[in-house]
Amino acid sequence: MKELLKKCCVEFIGTFFLVLTVGLTACGAHATPMAPIAIGIILAVMIYAGGHISGGHYNPAVSLAAAIRGAMEWKDMIPYWVAQLLGGVVAALAVLHFTTVAPPAENDLCLCCLILFEFLFTFALCYVVLNVATSKGTEGNSFYGFAIGSTVLVGAFASAGICYGAFNPAVALGLLTMATASAKVVGITALTNLVAGIVAGYVFKLTSDD
Amino acid sequence: MKELLKKCCVEFIGTFFLVLTVGLTACGAHATPMAPIAIGIILAVMIYAGGHISGGHYNPAVSLAAAIRGAMEWKDMIPYWVAQLLGGVVAALAVLHFTTVAPPAENDLCLCCLILFEFLFTFALCYVVLNVATSKGTEGNSFYGFAIGSTVLVGAFASAGICYGAFNPAVALGLLTMATASAKVVGITALTNLVAGIVAGYVFKLTSDD
Amino acid sequence: MKELLKKCCVEFIGTFFLVLTVGLTACGAHATPMAPIAIGIILAVMIYAGGHISGGHYNPAVSLAAAIRGAMEWKDMIPYWVAQLLGGVVAALAVLHFTTVAPPAENDLCLCCLILFEFLFTFALCYVVLNVATSKGTEGNSFYGFAIGSTVLVGAFASAGICYGAFNPAVALGLLTMATASAKVVGITALTNLVAGIVAGYVFKLTSDD
Amino acid sequence: MKELLKKCCVEFIGTFFLVLTVGLTACGAHATPMAPIAIGIILAVMIYAGGHISGGHYNPAVSLAAAIRGAMEWKDMIPYWVAQLLGGVVAALAVLHFTTVAPPAENDLCLCCLILFEFLFTFALCYVVLNVATSKGTEGNSFYGFAIGSTVLVGAFASAGICYGAFNPAVALGLLTMATASAKVVGITALTNLVAGIVAGYVFKLTSDD
Repeated sequence: MKELLKKCCVEFIGTFFLVLTVGLTACGAHATPMAPIAIGIILAVMIYAGGHISGGHYNPAVSLAAAIRGAMEWKDMIPYWVAQLLGGVVAALAVLHFTTVAPPAENDLCLCCLILFEFLFTFALCYVVLNVATSKGTEGNSFYGFAIGSTVLVGAFASAGICYGAFNPAVALGLLTMATASAKVVGITALTNLVAGIVAGYVFKLTSDD
Repeated sequence: MKELLKKCCVEFIGTFFLVLTVGLTACGAHATPMAPIAIGIILAVMIYAGGHISGGHYNPAVSLAAAIRGAMEWKDMIPYWVAQLLGGVVAALAVLHFTTVAPPAENDLCLCCLILFEFLFTFALCYVVLNVATSKGTEGNSFYGFAIGSTVLVGAFASAGICYGAFNPAVALGLLTMATASAKVVGITALTNLVAGIVAGYVFKLTSDD
Repeated sequence: MKELLKKCCVEFIGTFFLVLTVGLTACGAHATPMAPIAIGIILAVMIYAGGHISGGHYNPAVSLAAAIRGAMEWKDMIPYWVAQLLGGVVAALAVLHFTTVAPPAENDLCLCCLILFEFLFTFALCYVVLNVATSKGTEGNSFYGFAIGSTVLVGAFASAGICYGAFNPAVALGLLTMATASAKVVGITALTNLVAGIVAGYVFKLTSDD
Repeated sequence: MKELLKKCCVEFIGTFFLVLTVGLTACGAHATPMAPIAIGIILAVMIYAGGHISGGHYNPAVSLAAAIRGAMEWKDMIPYWVAQLLGGVVAALAVLHFTTVAPPAENDLCLCCLILFEFLFTFALCYVVLNVATSKGTEGNSFYGFAIGSTVLVGAFASAGICYGAFNPAVALGLLTMATASAKVVGITALTNLVAGIVAGYVFKLTSDD
């Protein structure tokens, strides 16, 4: 298979399982209070399984941060984004096949809090990715998947009562597809995620010697 | 001891503890909502303990995927399957010695959802196994057991309300032995698991350079 | 400091924190359903911290298995056991300083189940220790602490309604010191643990090439 | 960027996310019983992300222990402490922006228990840090972040009903900033943490060959 197509396949598979897990454990009729654990861990698993092929981003904001840092080629960005967003949408449709999902409940949502929180934890996520998966100082480690997935695990626990805790435009699009979040909130979330990815890329450059 | 006998011993021990944990934490009178954590982790543990001897499959579907990928010899398949299924049955009998197990409650079961879900997560499991335990790109890593066990952990959380979340014919046979699942559902589950293992073997060949 | 004294110090510290965690999270007035997680993880942590000095046994049954396998000298056995049991007793006294502990509730206890279960999981524990921490096939790995601690985590979840889930004479002695288990049950438990350690030592020799 | 400034940036970021997680998952209106898991894991994540730059202390007591052991230069101590305490304060202000925090409930607090417990687990934390992150016997491992973060995870579970489970003056200062702990208790906690760091530094020297 062509190299880029392989990479996009892997990005599709990883994002698919990430959003499938989000939908079934956090949004569906059998949602569990341990959803953040399942979500963080499936991300870790998919990074370990696919990282050596595609980098294991599964997240347009992470791909953006990686490109700014010089860890992926800019010309691969659009194919990556398409594969990731497609994975999110297909997974959301699968979720709807398996279960019913609650409609948006966004009355108590403070948009300012949502933006700040999504920014902070997407920044943390990209900062962690760049440091554990692309830095010379941590080369050859076995913890990169655990560290990256766990950032989302913590963010998902901490997001209770503040926002959806997406930290990922592909997850946000999945929530929209499941109709469990409004288009407005999803748009703001996705945009904030991308901005956080950009900031993390530059902060990494300032704090790293690579 | 003869090499193959050693391997089968290790496969028996690993599958035994996997199904024992499934029975006691998920099916018995003292089942806990944290059962998926215990189940995923015992699989990780047994892979770390026995992987260097037998490959640490503990799952006929995984053995099938491994053989397709060329990571195990076809002539060992039947002995492996026997050891794994025997481990599952003996563990189920041990569970019945320790506790009582609820009869099948399959009225709400959608067979189509069951097949799709068992397919998806058994595919994920085998895809993860092949990438983290048999691929050049991840050679020498310390995360393989964590990644593989965690796939089952996530699948078990996500399976709530859909199916038993076996992803493994030996586990399915264990559930049948405990009489907590019907023969029909167990048969469909086991068959689906094997098909998913085959598909994962070929998808790995397409997406990998090895 | 003399080499053996250093090792015994480390064994004392590790067993102390293990039994302290058991007492506070599983036996005290503020016990939590997540106690097995805390207990398994503190064992993992202490193995990572002290394994390179003493081997990180923190368990007379593990020391016995290690000696049979040839991974520790027989002449260190008694000093190790003294340090481990002392760590357990001192930790139990600390627990009683921090909180109140419930008296034994052993009416529903089936001695035959207790013996079988303690045997099975102590065997698993020692089998895992020998394979991940003393075998050539897994040399240089970073998962040994996780794998060993997690075996206890799983055993503790699975032991609900069957027994105390000690898998360790030093933990059993700690439970006796806290007066939350009877002398008879503690004695049977500790003896079973030691037998399981011996069996695991010989099974390792049969299934391993080292 | 100047080397020391880079390090302080990383210490600020790590301590910020640690205290943010403490505040949102353990102190705020949406606190969860799984807070210890989130708190321990965010510490692990931040150590993996920043350890190769600053050492990943995020804790004045850990920095003190590291300096005594010779793993950091004494002249960097004050800049590190400032970055860490500042991270804690800024995170506490962010928490107050996101949620409301309960006032102190310290009536049942036994000061003697608090001091003993904070001492024990801060000692464990620093003992683990020095052994897994600065010792020759564990060089090149991939588990250091997991081991260190997990120590706090266990301590936080075990601290229920005894104290706040800070083990870290920067966390204690964060609790004071959120006004969820009294100045007296925070002061005693922080002082105990520092003493435990000093003791751990010397115990490491006694039990290690480095």
